[in-house]
Amino acid sequence: MTTASVVVLVLDLAGTLVFALNGALTAIRSVRVDIVGVVTLGMITAMGGGIVRDVLIGRLPPATFSDWRYLAVAGVGALIAFALGRRLDRISLSINVFDALGLSFFAVTGATKALEAGLGPVQAVILGAITAVGGGTLRDVLIGQVPSVLSSGLYAIPAVVGAAITVVAVRLGVDGLAAALLAALACFTIRMLGLRFDIDAPTPRDAPPS
Amino acid sequence: MTTASVVVLVLDLAGTLVFALNGALTAIRSVRVDIVGVVTLGMITAMGGGIVRDVLIGRLPPATFSDWRYLAVAGVGALIAFALGRRLDRISLSINVFDALGLSFFAVTGATKALEAGLGPVQAVILGAITAVGGGTLRDVLIGQVPSVLSSGLYAIPAVVGAAITVVAVRLGVDGLAAALLAALACFTIRMLGLRFDIDAPTPRDAPPS
Amino acid sequence: MTTASVVVLVLDLAGTLVFALNGALTAIRSVRVDIVGVVTLGMITAMGGGIVRDVLIGRLPPATFSDWRYLAVAGVGALIAFALGRRLDRISLSINVFDALGLSFFAVTGATKALEAGLGPVQAVILGAITAVGGGTLRDVLIGQVPSVLSSGLYAIPAVVGAAITVVAVRLGVDGLAAALLAALACFTIRMLGLRFDIDAPTPRDAPPS
Repeated sequence: MTTASVVVLVLDLAGTLVFALNGALTAIRSVRVDIVGVVTLGMITAMGGGIVRDVLIGRLPPATFSDWRYLAVAGVGALIAFALGRRLDRISLSINVFDALGLSFFAVTGATKALEAGLGPVQAVILGAITAVGGGTLRDVLIGQVPSVLSSGLYAIPAVVGAAITVVAVRLGVDGLAAALLAALACFTIRMLGLRFDIDAPTPRDAPPS
Repeated sequence: MTTASVVVLVLDLAGTLVFALNGALTAIRSVRVDIVGVVTLGMITAMGGGIVRDVLIGRLPPATFSDWRYLAVAGVGALIAFALGRRLDRISLSINVFDALGLSFFAVTGATKALEAGLGPVQAVILGAITAVGGGTLRDVLIGQVPSVLSSGLYAIPAVVGAAITVVAVRLGVDGLAAALLAALACFTIRMLGLRFDIDAPTPRDAPPS
Repeated sequence: MTTASVVVLVLDLAGTLVFALNGALTAIRSVRVDIVGVVTLGMITAMGGGIVRDVLIGRLPPATFSDWRYLAVAGVGALIAFALGRRLDRISLSINVFDALGLSFFAVTGATKALEAGLGPVQAVILGAITAVGGGTLRDVLIGQVPSVLSSGLYAIPAVVGAAITVVAVRLGVDGLAAALLAALACFTIRMLGLRFDIDAPTPRDAPPS
C-alpha cells in the first residue's frame, strides 16, 4: 500500500467508528428502537454515505461493504452505543468533536476516491460531501426526521470546503498526505467554529417559522 | 448529434430547470431549510428521477450527474428559487404549467433512454414514470411528507401514458421527434386537465379519511 | 434450469405475491393513497428488497426488475389488495403467516444470490436480511412511518438466522433444496414464535417511551 492509501484507510476507519457511535446514539435518543434498530441505524450512519458514493461512481459492490474491516468497525461502534446508551451523553462534547473529525475524514476520502474513479472536479466535490453527510441523512429519514443537514448549522458547507481543497490539491499535484490533512483541518475548523458560535447558513426570507 | 438526441437534450434541460425551481420552492414552503437545504432539495427534485433510472439501468455514473450542464441548470434553478422565495408564488399558475412540462419531458426522455439501454417495453414505461416522478418523491421523503404522487391528483398516470406512447412509437418505428412531441403533449394534456378539473385517481373504498 | 434454481424461482415468486398483498394492505390502512399509491407501495414492498440487494451486488438492471414474471406477480398482488381492501382483514392471521413465509423465502434466496455473485459470507447474510426486510422498510419510509423492523418484534433476526443457515449450508456443500427448506423453516418458526408469544428484541435501557 502507498502512504496515501494507508492514510485514506486509517481516516476512513476512524470516521466509520465515530459515525457509528454517533448515529446509534442519535437513534436511541430520538425514537423507540430495539437492538436491530440501533445496530442498523449506526451502521447506516457510518457506511451509508460511502455506499451512496460508490453506487453513483458505479464501483459495485461498494468498497466499504465488501471490506470486513468497515463492517466490523461500524458494528462495534453501534454495539458500544447500545451497551452504554445515554451514559455517553456525558461525553457529548467529545461526540461533537469526533463527529466533526468523521465529517472531515469522509469529505477528504470521498473526494479522493471520486477523482481516482475518473470523475470530474465538481462531481468529486459533491461526492465528497455526500460521503460525509449521506449516512446521517439516511438515518434521519429512517427515524422520521427532516435531515438536520438541510436546515441548521454548518455541516454540509465545511464538507464541501474540505472536498474542494482536496480536489484542488490533487489537481495541482500537491503531495497526498499533506493535502489530505490540510483539507480535513479546514473542514474540521469550520465545523467547530460553527458549533462554538452557533453559526447558521443563510435561510430564505419567507421560510416558515421553526 | 442526431436530431433525436438534440431534442432529448433540450427537453431534458428544460425539465431539469423547472423541476429544480419547483422542488426548491416546495421545500421553502414546507419546512425550515437553509441555503444548503434549498439547493440540495431543488437539485434532487430535478435530477433524482434520472439518477434512480440510471442506477436501475446500470449506466453508472448516472448520465445527468456526469454532465456539468445538468448540474449547472439544476443548481441555477434552485438558487433562483432561494433568491426570489415566495415572490414566485405570484407565478404559481405558470409553475404548475412548467412542472407539467417537466413531467412530460422526463417521461418521454426516460422511456427513450431505457429502450436505448436495451430494457423491455414494460420496464421502459416504468422507468419513464420513475424519471418523471422520482425526484419529487425523493424530495417529499426528505421533507417528511408522504409523496403527493401516491395520494392525489393525476401525476403518475399522465407520465405512464406519455412513456407508453413513446415506447409504442419507437417499437413501430415512428420518427423520433414527432413521436416524442406527441407523447409529451398527451402527458401534458392529461396533467393539465387533471389540475383544471381537480380529477383524482380512484382510491380504495376503506381508505382512512384525509 | 437446475432443481435449485427452480426452487429459488418458486420461493421468490411466492414471496413476491404475499409481500405485494401485505404491502399494499399496510399502505391502505395507514395513509390516504389512491390506486397509484397502492400499486406503487405494493410493488415496492415486494420488489424493493431484491432491487436494493442487486444494486449492492452490482447486478444491474436488477434481476427481478428485468423479469416480467416478478413485475406481473407483484402488480397482481397489489391490485388484489386494492380491489378487496379491508375485507382482507378477516384473513389477517393468514396474512401474518404468508408474510412470515415471504420473509423466509427472501432471506434464503437473497443470501443464495449474494453467494452466487461472489460476495463473502457476512455480506451474504446481510444481503439475505436486506432482501427480506428492505421492501417493507422502503414502504414504511414512503408512508411516513419509522420502519417497524427497527423497533419491534422479531423480524430482522429470523431473516438473519435464515440467511446464516443458508450460507453455512452452501459452504458445507449441503444439497441446495434441503438446506434452503431447512433455513426457511428456521426463519419461519422464529418469526411465528415471536408473533405468538409477543417477543421483542432487547431495547436500550434509556430509550424514550413509545
